[in-house]
Amino acid sequence: MKKIKIAVIGTGRIGQMHIENIANLREYFELIAIADSYNDHLEEIADKYQIPVFTKNYQDVLTNKDVEAVLIASSTDTHAEIIMAAAENGKHILCEKPIDTEIERIKKVLAVVKEKNVFLQIGFNRRFDHNFHKIHEYVTNGSLGDPQIIKVSSRDPEPPSLEYVKISGGLFSDMMIHDFDMVRYLSNSEVTEVFANGAVLVDPKIGDAGDIDTAIVTLKFANGALGVIDNSRQAVYGYDQRAEVFGSKGQAFSENDRLSNVELDNATGGHVDKIPVFFIERYTQAYVDELKAFYATVTEHKEPAITGFDGLQAVKIAQACLESLKTHKPVVLK
Amino acid sequence: MKKIKIAVIGTGRIGQMHIENIANLREYFELIAIADSYNDHLEEIADKYQIPVFTKNYQDVLTNKDVEAVLIASSTDTHAEIIMAAAENGKHILCEKPIDTEIERIKKVLAVVKEKNVFLQIGFNRRFDHNFHKIHEYVTNGSLGDPQIIKVSSRDPEPPSLEYVKISGGLFSDMMIHDFDMVRYLSNSEVTEVFANGAVLVDPKIGDAGDIDTAIVTLKFANGALGVIDNSRQAVYGYDQRAEVFGSKGQAFSENDRLSNVELDNATGGHVDKIPVFFIERYTQAYVDELKAFYATVTEHKEPAITGFDGLQAVKIAQACLESLKTHKPVVLK
Amino acid sequence: MKKIKIAVIGTGRIGQMHIENIANLREYFELIAIADSYNDHLEEIADKYQIPVFTKNYQDVLTNKDVEAVLIASSTDTHAEIIMAAAENGKHILCEKPIDTEIERIKKVLAVVKEKNVFLQIGFNRRFDHNFHKIHEYVTNGSLGDPQIIKVSSRDPEPPSLEYVKISGGLFSDMMIHDFDMVRYLSNSEVTEVFANGAVLVDPKIGDAGDIDTAIVTLKFANGALGVIDNSRQAVYGYDQRAEVFGSKGQAFSENDRLSNVELDNATGGHVDKIPVFFIERYTQAYVDELKAFYATVTEHKEPAITGFDGLQAVKIAQACLESLKTHKPVVLK
Amino acid sequence: MKKIKIAVIGTGRIGQMHIENIANLREYFELIAIADSYNDHLEEIADKYQIPVFTKNYQDVLTNKDVEAVLIASSTDTHAEIIMAAAENGKHILCEKPIDTEIERIKKVLAVVKEKNVFLQIGFNRRFDHNFHKIHEYVTNGSLGDPQIIKVSSRDPEPPSLEYVKISGGLFSDMMIHDFDMVRYLSNSEVTEVFANGAVLVDPKIGDAGDIDTAIVTLKFANGALGVIDNSRQAVYGYDQRAEVFGSKGQAFSENDRLSNVELDNATGGHVDKIPVFFIERYTQAYVDELKAFYATVTEHKEPAITGFDGLQAVKIAQACLESLKTHKPVVLK
Repeated sequence: MKKIKIAVIGTGRIGQMHIENIANLREYFELIAIADSYNDHLEEIADKYQIPVFTKNYQDVLTNKDVEAVLIASSTDTHAEIIMAAAENGKHILCEKPIDTEIERIKKVLAVVKEKNVFLQIGFNRRFDHNFHKIHEYVTNGSLGDPQIIKVSSRDPEPPSLEYVKISGGLFSDMMIHDFDMVRYLSNSEVTEVFANGAVLVDPKIGDAGDIDTAIVTLKFANGALGVIDNSRQAVYGYDQRAEVFGSKGQAFSENDRLSNVELDNATGGHVDKIPVFFIERYTQAYVDELKAFYATVTEHKEPAITGFDGLQAVKIAQACLESLKTHKPVVLK
Repeated sequence: MKKIKIAVIGTGRIGQMHIENIANLREYFELIAIADSYNDHLEEIADKYQIPVFTKNYQDVLTNKDVEAVLIASSTDTHAEIIMAAAENGKHILCEKPIDTEIERIKKVLAVVKEKNVFLQIGFNRRFDHNFHKIHEYVTNGSLGDPQIIKVSSRDPEPPSLEYVKISGGLFSDMMIHDFDMVRYLSNSEVTEVFANGAVLVDPKIGDAGDIDTAIVTLKFANGALGVIDNSRQAVYGYDQRAEVFGSKGQAFSENDRLSNVELDNATGGHVDKIPVFFIERYTQAYVDELKAFYATVTEHKEPAITGFDGLQAVKIAQACLESLKTHKPVVLK
Repeated sequence: MKKIKIAVIGTGRIGQMHIENIANLREYFELIAIADSYNDHLEEIADKYQIPVFTKNYQDVLTNKDVEAVLIASSTDTHAEIIMAAAENGKHILCEKPIDTEIERIKKVLAVVKEKNVFLQIGFNRRFDHNFHKIHEYVTNGSLGDPQIIKVSSRDPEPPSLEYVKISGGLFSDMMIHDFDMVRYLSNSEVTEVFANGAVLVDPKIGDAGDIDTAIVTLKFANGALGVIDNSRQAVYGYDQRAEVFGSKGQAFSENDRLSNVELDNATGGHVDKIPVFFIERYTQAYVDELKAFYATVTEHKEPAITGFDGLQAVKIAQACLESLKTHKPVVLK
Repeated sequence: MKKIKIAVIGTGRIGQMHIENIANLREYFELIAIADSYNDHLEEIADKYQIPVFTKNYQDVLTNKDVEAVLIASSTDTHAEIIMAAAENGKHILCEKPIDTEIERIKKVLAVVKEKNVFLQIGFNRRFDHNFHKIHEYVTNGSLGDPQIIKVSSRDPEPPSLEYVKISGGLFSDMMIHDFDMVRYLSNSEVTEVFANGAVLVDPKIGDAGDIDTAIVTLKFANGALGVIDNSRQAVYGYDQRAEVFGSKGQAFSENDRLSNVELDNATGGHVDKIPVFFIERYTQAYVDELKAFYATVTEHKEPAITGFDGLQAVKIAQACLESLKTHKPVVLK
């Protein structure tokens, strides 16, 4: 098996998770460089994973001839710039979502990627989750017939800090964006219209910061199906991640994973284990499979599992939801 | 235990189910009369259940001094008239949903009932279902904290005949009306606004008849919660009836009942039993408990479990949904 | 549909349950007499169910020419005598388990039944349970291939009174006897050998009374399969009733029924509803279907679903277990 | 965090799995040597994981001063010799089960380990499984009260090769040994007596080779509890691994893990995903946690999670079962 020489740009919590996964996929990747402008522990990380090169300047990584691909896990506002620079240097790219928050800027990024003929995969990790992937398989292999109703529930265990809320771009762009991608994935179709209801039920300070913490969005799809997504910033029982597709031949739905499959029965009833609280714990396997898919794309020269276009569409839907919330009317996607 | 002397008006499929249930509740009721203008087998039914009186004219029943209460299971267009006549004669009333399709008429009916000081219980049987009742219990006893998201899925095994579709009043009035009552029951609050998406995905002839067969409705509640209901006229796997309430302290959701709790594991995976297809099979216990609740109301002189006001509200929501579907805008309830 | 004219002998708790079920099966049976030597409320019961004849002397019932069939729910020590008398009078018989506690006496009873050419069905109600029936269906239709391992768990919610324990014949004869029939039903084979382990873990007074309250019995079957039954007199979480068959093509196992299919998720984990505590609540539907099977046997002149031979075999296995417990050795069935 | 310098002896399938896990636990271990007399790809493995030393002679590893601990994954017949040699050289030891097949030899091994004052942990990996660990937690924290019935089902997806069967020591020593350890773990007690039933139901060639392929063993425990284990060499639906503990305050039982938590409902019923087929896939997390426990033992100088005594007891029970199977009598453990 040929190994891909890869570099990671951005070494925060999620960047370090990717570094760990890449290091463990030792038959797939050779991790030869990491870059981060802000992390004071770069050397320590490089040492732990025996990474030859570490630098505060991501340009060093992009001009490194040995580097074939980069994984971008830096802050959202740097994604567009780094993707374009990586493409200019002929590197294949796996970039965390979202590409950017502005449609025009995303289009420009995608044009550069296309021109430079490199692969760009977007980090919508949930597509690789065993549960959602299985539902998608049932949709795609015809087990469900024509999809008619698509439902996604996605609830965080607790709200992010108010500081983060203020710069997050809002619930639709920051949190529900995963679900916009998910409904496209599960319906095998495009969203044509949305209507958004939102509320501040978890913490009034989130409302003061100009955001919502609870939302229900209904959607229409090009294939005629209807859909609904619900989000809450706070599910006290854990990280609630479920989906359902109903079609002309049946339905498929996923339950939450639990920490164990043990049931306790006692005088007060039956009791089952908790669901995971932390997103990395919930999507451990999905983050690994995301890397394997990127490997296949690069080595087999095939279309990324999640393209730049997928990244663009999710942002478009998020912006339509924001408009719907403000105008209190359904919004047609252009 | 004092027995209530009761009569049943309307002896179609659902009327006969009520007759069977009443006959079996022999410590609660004495079934002393049945009436139906159209049923040619009245004598046969009376004979089977040893009912002393049977008549084609429901007025006979209402003027019968022995009758203390009536169960009305005749066609919807006769409900208002019979309820008022029953009230005039001082009979307590258990009436199948809906009271009527016109708001003003329902208000008139309720005024008569109030004036005559009889009890009127509406036949939203699902409130007595073991699953939905349990969720309601969790809401009411505070286990879930403040309700924030209310979800109901309700899908029929197959569409009714086109003849029925044409006179049904449409999906919202005929089918989703149960769910409008359910979300009020599960939220312990009132619906303040709706937005309706509808589609014809099951059978184009339903669309030709001016109706929809698939719908997703989002709702806002007076207590701040958001809600969503989805309906389909055809779930090939059975009569799909589920609900979920998410709140500040947790969530409760119901799975479908199945014909057995047996799991088969073989080389193709795991397999569980079917869900019931027929609504009377699904709600067997609920229909019995509905009668017990009516018994308690009459003998203990307490507020019906489901009041005329509940009947009115469900119709109001249905009409708002129809308006939303037509105008493609959210509609505020008056 | 022809109705069978039936009488019930024995009107204790289980007898009254049968009376209720027979009364509700109004298209199947006409309940024309009840008999009980000890019940002072016979008239009241007859009145409630409109039963024409009630008597302290069961002979009155057996000599009543109108009576076609009898259901025997009197105490165990009277079964043999009443079955023989009923057979002598040409009545078909549905008798609660066990026929008797002595093998030779049972054989004599079965000889009389055969000679008089009446049908005798034994009341092993659990064969009609939706869950166990479904597993049996999988065995019989070949879904599981050759049965190899048969497992039954059967645990009561609480021990009977010590008075009852003393006259019960012991755990094997009184409680596990249902499971002996169940493993025969689920294996479609005969038990050839048993080994019994027993213990007093619930209440030392049960041990003082010469009985055990906890037992595990392993079994061998004529078809080569192995089996195991476990019993406890006290499961604090309810009436635990489960089975499993493992075969060359797969396995089928049943979960306990629950009072609802609602799951609550909160900060302490997931919670499901209780399982029923009372055997009549758990086997409501099975007791009704038992009567329908008896109806079919009598009206269609076909072999009873559970024969006198089945009744005999279960007692034989129970006695072999008692011998195994005493000798602490495996016991081969004759 | 201090890293333990470790070596792995034996690099077959399971040895390589341990190497992979050790390499990924880079904060816990430094893998500095591997040894295997038979593997021709040692250099390749050393290269892949960047292991400085590889050798055909395990003595090289044991005399290597840098090595602090060894993981022994060589063939069973070499365990005793290598453990003793490792202890002589002052290395801490994590050894795959079983220590040996002869009781006297195991005792000698344990004596050497004790004399040399090194830690020995036995590789009963299932104790670290999320499901079994959770049941054990319920037993240990008193949630279940006094344990009364212990049940373990353990079934392989397919039989091993006949060559392997012949040298395996038989089903009790090779396969059920894991379950003997499991019932000790779940009961927090010692087995005092066994009775074994065995059969050849999967493949007559296994019988020709002098072994059985299906077995049910009942057990008595020092704390009064009763237990049962069932094994089959072939479960066509996957690697079936379940347990149940019933006690005075309730019961806890585990379901099999599945490849996903998706349910499909269609016209033929409900369908859930397969269970894993491969033991390494089933116990992925357990094998990792086994290493973490070993790390804790060595660095915190605390009793191993699974001691040499545990290893001895499992072998004793296996031999008692073999004797029971031959004599067809219960066998008391000495």
